[in-house]
Amino acid sequence: KIDGERLWDSLMQMALVGPGIAGGNNRQTLTDADAEGRALFRRWCEDAGMTMGLDRMGNMFMRHEGAEPELDPVYIGSHLDTQPTGGRFDGVLGVLAGLEVIRSIRDMGIMTRRPIVVTNWTNEEGARFAPAMLASGVFAGVLTEDYANSRTDAEGKLFGDELDRIGWRGDEVPGERRIHAMFEYHIEQGPILEAEGKQIGVVTHGQGLWWLQVTLTGKDAHTGSTPMSMRVNAGLGMARIIEAVHRIAMDHQPDAVGAVGQANVWPNSRNVIPGRAVFTVDFRSPDLDKLNAMRARLEEEAPQIAAQLGLGIEIEPVGHFDPVTFDPALVGKVRDAAERLGYSHMNIVSGAGHDACWIAKVAPTVMIMCPCVDGLSHNEAEEITPEWASAGADVLLHAVLDAAEV
Amino acid sequence: KIDGERLWDSLMQMALVGPGIAGGNNRQTLTDADAEGRALFRRWCEDAGMTMGLDRMGNMFMRHEGAEPELDPVYIGSHLDTQPTGGRFDGVLGVLAGLEVIRSIRDMGIMTRRPIVVTNWTNEEGARFAPAMLASGVFAGVLTEDYANSRTDAEGKLFGDELDRIGWRGDEVPGERRIHAMFEYHIEQGPILEAEGKQIGVVTHGQGLWWLQVTLTGKDAHTGSTPMSMRVNAGLGMARIIEAVHRIAMDHQPDAVGAVGQANVWPNSRNVIPGRAVFTVDFRSPDLDKLNAMRARLEEEAPQIAAQLGLGIEIEPVGHFDPVTFDPALVGKVRDAAERLGYSHMNIVSGAGHDACWIAKVAPTVMIMCPCVDGLSHNEAEEITPEWASAGADVLLHAVLDAAEV
Ligand SMILES: NC(=O)NCCC(=O)O
Ligand SMILES: NC(=O)NCCC(=O)O
Repeated sequence: KIDGERLWDSLMQMALVGPGIAGGNNRQTLTDADAEGRALFRRWCEDAGMTMGLDRMGNMFMRHEGAEPELDPVYIGSHLDTQPTGGRFDGVLGVLAGLEVIRSIRDMGIMTRRPIVVTNWTNEEGARFAPAMLASGVFAGVLTEDYANSRTDAEGKLFGDELDRIGWRGDEVPGERRIHAMFEYHIEQGPILEAEGKQIGVVTHGQGLWWLQVTLTGKDAHTGSTPMSMRVNAGLGMARIIEAVHRIAMDHQPDAVGAVGQANVWPNSRNVIPGRAVFTVDFRSPDLDKLNAMRARLEEEAPQIAAQLGLGIEIEPVGHFDPVTFDPALVGKVRDAAERLGYSHMNIVSGAGHDACWIAKVAPTVMIMCPCVDGLSHNEAEEITPEWASAGADVLLHAVLDAAEV
Repeated sequence: KIDGERLWDSLMQMALVGPGIAGGNNRQTLTDADAEGRALFRRWCEDAGMTMGLDRMGNMFMRHEGAEPELDPVYIGSHLDTQPTGGRFDGVLGVLAGLEVIRSIRDMGIMTRRPIVVTNWTNEEGARFAPAMLASGVFAGVLTEDYANSRTDAEGKLFGDELDRIGWRGDEVPGERRIHAMFEYHIEQGPILEAEGKQIGVVTHGQGLWWLQVTLTGKDAHTGSTPMSMRVNAGLGMARIIEAVHRIAMDHQPDAVGAVGQANVWPNSRNVIPGRAVFTVDFRSPDLDKLNAMRARLEEEAPQIAAQLGLGIEIEPVGHFDPVTFDPALVGKVRDAAERLGYSHMNIVSGAGHDACWIAKVAPTVMIMCPCVDGLSHNEAEEITPEWASAGADVLLHAVLDAAEV
């Protein structure tokens, strides 16, 4: 078993970097806080005898050598970046549990045939720069480096410029590495494991996603002196489309969700009818047909809503992945490890997107989940217990040792 | 008649201060650009022989002496501040036409018995600090100085601190002045005069207003892994209340308007269900019963909408004035002046709020309006013709000379 106390201590120390306002974290990608978190993680890894590789997307590859260095390594990876009001465990648990696996096998004097590489993937959250899982997407060849470098944040800053600014761009070509197997350990971010009383989620599939950015163009005008009949109100159009997104998701129950998370109107003044609205729709389903049907229905209904109000409309996809099936052999190894350790477990579908969803396109990949309190995530109040954290890390250790061949 | 070319030149010069991004202005109250606009106006007034009074709210009183200085002066006033994406004429026309009246009567060698004071009221727009017409409201005794000083902008800066910072707080106690009559000349900001082909609006009444700030509290959560049944979505609540505001206004037609101009969700991230939404409802009507009925219906319906979604709700009034009836004798003087000058005119109700609406509580007050293209205002594309501008200023000149007793 891993050292649960040491894992928890590392989690709590990392949580001091980029603190939030309510006990969580704001360590958004490519900020100064992100740079600080990376440096801390690097130091810990180097103290554990690991060496760093860094690619042109800022993905960090911390290598623990194997008895046969020429064999393809086993990867353990997740992300250190957070939402603007994020929790202390989302992503971070997977990266630091990877480090804890290495610390533990060194303590135990175990030598694996294959090297093990613990990875911090850049910009998993997609909060500052859409889409999510940007740098693992480039690694998997689904997105290009140019596309990634040209993503902009809300202030118009470029991903590429910010990566250079914080000093974490490496030389390695993204995606050149060969991966024998990749493991991602993550909190569930949903309520199922806790409700079912299970310690371990054996993740068999991941939901697919569409992010659709909608721009409505009306006419800024005075809220007092413009008659109702002359208004071209982009804020009203946004309201109707937010309602439509909800209705579409409800009409595709079960196994479908939909919401608008980001919503802005211009000029955002109390006495100006909004002349422009920009907002992002998030649809997800583990069922590819449902996922695409929800997008199609929005693309049919939203332009009708806009037309009724005289609004111009543009709908641009800004994030997408199909539902994922994880590698059955690795899924088996995770289940066996949980069984062997005597932890209660169940099969589960990941509701969130993860770097593992992209890496699954280029290498055998699997995920392990632990519960989180009330299923709450993307909230500073996100919480897990030290026991939950360790149980998943134990499973990770056993499954990784199995794949890395002791 | 006034010098129309000189008036237009001054308008165009003032428009260079705090330029917008699309040909209009961003000269929001108590910004550096506001300070620059004030200094320019002061210089112009002093060049025309006027002297400045400045009160503790930053209201500027530029005095042109009368033959009998001890008589109560006639006031001409409006505002130099603009919306974040405002036009070049909203408010500015009324202030600079006041200056043009003084320049013209000096040129003509006319001496009035009463002094004439041209006023720039602070923070008419209410865009940066709610409510609108803040400093004229303090002058009229409807709002207190403490209330005004404690208003905050979106960055949390205080009105009082910003007034001190730009160096435009005076010593005079607001409201101490005696006013014989007050005239405000303003663009219509609506489509009626242009549609009716009239040069002059004789403003008999002003609409009343309620600004209601609504705060919805839900629970930030992951858009992917949170089942639909567990969501407490403040953004969806906001959408439903925006729709309700529209419906309530439509149900009170004619003579009623309603919209949401300012709308924000938190944390405003693509993959986070909004845990909080804050937005402002703007209801207006010239009919007090309708105005209050709209507010009452929102206060009934919005909590029901919130309850259905499990959201907490707070509704706070952040701006209010009752419908206004302007002084019948002064209204007569404006109509007579238009008639004498041979300008086409009609009675009109002001759709927007104006400093005149507050001053009407403490002194005989009236407004004059000119048309604006397509009724468009609170938009950088706001436009009037030099001929429209001068015609209203001519009426202002005649009515003011009448009141100031030549
Ligand atoms: N795990 C996680 O929250 N990833 C962010 C991408 C997503 O929205 O699913
Ligand atoms: N005239 C004008 O636009 N005033 C701002 C206050 C209001 O919203 O009516």
